[in-house]
Order: sequence, then C-alpha cells, then structure tokens
Amino acid sequence: MDQAYKDIVGFHGHSCPGLAMGYRMTKGVLGFLSGSRARDEEIVAITENDACGVDALQWLSGCTFGKGNLIFKDYGKQVFTLYNRKTGRGARVVFRDQSVPENLRKDRKKLVCWILSAPEEEALSVAEVQIDEPAPARIMNSITCEFCGEKVMETRIEQVNGKAACIPCSHRV
Amino acid sequence: MDQAYKDIVGFHGHSCPGLAMGYRMTKGVLGFLSGSRARDEEIVAITENDACGVDALQWLSGCTFGKGNLIFKDYGKQVFTLYNRKTGRGARVVFRDQSVPENLRKDRKKLVCWILSAPEEEALSVAEVQIDEPAPARIMNSITCEFCGEKVMETRIEQVNGKAACIPCSHRV
Repeated sequence: MDQAYKDIVGFHGHSCPGLAMGYRMTKGVLGFLSGSRARDEEIVAITENDACGVDALQWLSGCTFGKGNLIFKDYGKQVFTLYNRKTGRGARVVFRDQSVPENLRKDRKKLVCWILSAPEEEALSVAEVQIDEPAPARIMNSITCEFCGEKVMETRIEQVNGKAACIPCSHRV
Repeated sequence: MDQAYKDIVGFHGHSCPGLAMGYRMTKGVLGFLSGSRARDEEIVAITENDACGVDALQWLSGCTFGKGNLIFKDYGKQVFTLYNRKTGRGARVVFRDQSVPENLRKDRKKLVCWILSAPEEEALSVAEVQIDEPAPARIMNSITCEFCGEKVMETRIEQVNGKAACIPCSHRV
C-alpha cells in the first residue's frame, strides 16, 4: 500500500474493496489525462455512483462535494468521467469487475490487494470521451428567512404569505 | 491556523470563508456531542448546503459522500445536523452570519481569520435536536447491463424490451 492509499483510508475511515477501486480508477484516469489534483475547479468529475470509491476520487482528484466540481449521476455504475477545463479533454474510466479472480471475491483483504496491484489494463478501461463542459459552481447571495431568521441562499427562498421563507419553514407554515 | 485547518485546506484545495465556517461548525457540533470522527457510519451528518464548508465537515467528522453517512438537503442554509448512532443524540449547528463584523466582509483573508478565531458563542448556535435515526447505507448486488455489458447496481436496472438496461442505455435505446 502506498502512502496516498493510506492517506485515503484515513479520510474514508477504513480500507475496503470499493475504496481501492476508486483509488485505481482515479489514478488511472488522472494518468490518462496527464492531470494533477484540482486546486479550484479546473477538473470536474462525474461519478455514476455514491459508493466508497468516491472518497478516493475526492481525495486524489480534488473534485469534492464542497467545491462544486463533483457531479453525481445516480446510475449505480463503477464509472467516473473526468473533464479538464484547461485542455478541454475528458476521459471515462470503468472498473473491470470481470477481471477479478473468483476465488478472491469473498476475501476482502486479498481482494483489496489484487485491486491495488493488478495491471492497469486488467483492472480498468479508460477511454477518451467528448462531453459538454459542465457549468462552474456559482456563489449566490444570502437573504434572511422571515420565519426562522436564518440566512438562506437566495435561490432557495420561497414566498409564503408574501414573506421570504426557507424550505423547512415553508413546509411548517 | 491549526494543523487540522491546514490539512482541510489541502483536501479542499484552497482556504476560503466558507471552508472556515464549515471547520468551526463541525468542531463546534462534534464538541457539543462529545464526538470523534466516524470510522464507519456511527455518526451521520445532514448538511443543508453543498458549499465549501462541507469539505471541512467530511474531513473532520468522517461523514463523507462515499460512505453514505452524509445526507444532503438542498436548503441553501449554513446548517449542519449531526446524529450519533451510539448515543442517539443529535445536534444542529448554525453559523451566526449576523456576528460577522461588517468591515471584514470584503476582505477574505481577514474574514477567514475572524471565523477561525471568534468566540464560539459569537460564531455559532449549537442546540440539541431530536431526529429520526437515518437508515444506514446498504450494499447492493450488481448485475450486467445487457446493452453495454457494464456492471450496474441492481436497484438502478431498468427493463427495456425484456432486457436489463443501465439508465444511460435505457435512454439511448
């Protein structure tokens, strides 16, 4: 296990096959795109699942939930697509589940070892893809909910009896 | 700046007021609940925004997008609610935007310093709340899409002409 995987385990909380898959997938697709970690929003990731491996994606690629450059499509597939805004190139990576030796599927520790060390062409399919450039994250103004007094992003305000309401207050009144 | 904030800046990619808010909020609510970081799913976080501060929440609380213990409610509010499955206690933390000195609002560096160092009672409101225990994340079986041949979580399969299709393939055929 290299240091980056250990650090990712620290972030995620534990090692598991899903995390190892996300680690290999992210390293593979970043390598394909000759990309480094996103300091701001220069890389965008589209993940087709919300399983453990996405924590490796966040950690390695810098495409994080809080930065607005992690897009979730709820397709239940072990697929990430990364897009580099600087180069305009995109690549899609799929974990090749069919390569996993059957005798390892029930032994999580050995499975993690196999995923981390298998040759890239066995573990992954990586291919260039054309995608439309995702819109960058926007910073919105905040206004005050006239019911609870808490600040709310202006695009999440609803009008209730002529007053500005946050979504939870709009459900209560 | 303490080491934890520096590490979070490393994860997020840059320091900003939103990240600092998330850092104070998460430290405050974890302290209130006498909680430590979630190795697995023992803590659940509900975030009412998807802005920068959620990266501090992920890093400090261990409630991460990939682990299934980060629940997003798109309310546009600087509010986190944390729930500890072991103790059954929940707490809600709000960043007190009204406390921010007006002369600091346009100076991001000074604003970050204020957010990181303001007394907790000025920066935050933290209160115990009763919430229903969120359901834990589930691991699903995968089956193969009969159109693209890729593996898909069984609950995301659709039937197209009597064949199992992943969502993207079901849109194409």
